[in-house]
Amino acid sequence: MLTLFYASGTCARASHITLEDVGAEFEPKRLNFAAGDQNKPEYLAINPKARVPALITDQGILTETPAILVYIAQMFPKANLLPLNDPFRLAQIQAFNSYLCSTVHVAHAHRARGYRWADDQAAQESMKKKVPQNMVDCFELIEGTYFKGPWVMGDAYTIADPYLFTIASWLEADSVYPKRFPKVLDHRNRVAERPAVKKVLARETA
Amino acid sequence: MLTLFYASGTCARASHITLEDVGAEFEPKRLNFAAGDQNKPEYLAINPKARVPALITDQGILTETPAILVYIAQMFPKANLLPLNDPFRLAQIQAFNSYLCSTVHVAHAHRARGYRWADDQAAQESMKKKVPQNMVDCFELIEGTYFKGPWVMGDAYTIADPYLFTIASWLEADSVYPKRFPKVLDHRNRVAERPAVKKVLARETA
Repeated sequence: MLTLFYASGTCARASHITLEDVGAEFEPKRLNFAAGDQNKPEYLAINPKARVPALITDQGILTETPAILVYIAQMFPKANLLPLNDPFRLAQIQAFNSYLCSTVHVAHAHRARGYRWADDQAAQESMKKKVPQNMVDCFELIEGTYFKGPWVMGDAYTIADPYLFTIASWLEADSVYPKRFPKVLDHRNRVAERPAVKKVLARETA
Repeated sequence: MLTLFYASGTCARASHITLEDVGAEFEPKRLNFAAGDQNKPEYLAINPKARVPALITDQGILTETPAILVYIAQMFPKANLLPLNDPFRLAQIQAFNSYLCSTVHVAHAHRARGYRWADDQAAQESMKKKVPQNMVDCFELIEGTYFKGPWVMGDAYTIADPYLFTIASWLEADSVYPKRFPKVLDHRNRVAERPAVKKVLARETA
């Protein structure tokens, strides 16, 4: 039995969708970030990084979206979300997800979580100002170079798709007009129609 | 035949060491970051992100350290650097490497590359000031929670080891006293003695 800790609107959505995609039995547990659930001792015992997602498995606890996505895909091979025996294609998917976590998510985080990297208010305001341009730069690269279509990696839906969907859903909040990126926007609309995604979005706000 | 693009002192060192660890035949190509090689059109054609590492393979170009490390380990299974058929252990290694790329490397980058996230000098200075504390926080978590010993993941040397070694080598430059982290420092010293690592460090400065 799996337990997923998530918070609404966060990158945990990618893991949450993937658990539904593969038809996993799992217990979703929502943290209230505004109430500081992530910093409470009982959650820090699960994930001392005070972040989501965290996935409790029979063997122990896993964190970090790229790792959890591969784990789910590998545990549920019938869902065909990852070509594990094709090293180059696997690496392309991993490179895409790694770019999302280390560059795109980080660019976005400078809007609301600038306190992680600077203590003074003026510096945090300055970071905030640069977020739209950084997100535009990232999504130009995704739209123009990495996105193959119709899914991120081409004909097959993979673990790159729920992750791009999740981060692309932050564009408006980052003051970026998603119509600038027609392929990404079309992808976002198509992913939103998937039953697993509808289920997750409804659960996040229930 | 593989070609690795790297720059001295960067995170590309992890991939570089791993190529030597597995005994791969490859051509190392050094970029001079100070001279702006990473922004020249010929390199942007290889990696439009203007970063290292980039690995040219017979099937195409790969970027992003966590992806390249898994790719090398998978292509050279005899080196036993990754338990690919053990989903939970694989995920633990991936989670560790994902934390290094998305949190620890990012914390470090705010010292010399603050211009990525804010345009004004004062904000960049403010970010710089917070780097030592952020690196301390990250390495306390590594030392106290994630590092199993004698190698990162326990008894077996894996692709988490050259990556931790690489990032731990930045501590002094980030004004963090590595003796605060005896396990990490001991690990760094032992990794430095490996023939593959000596070869790479010599090549970086040749």
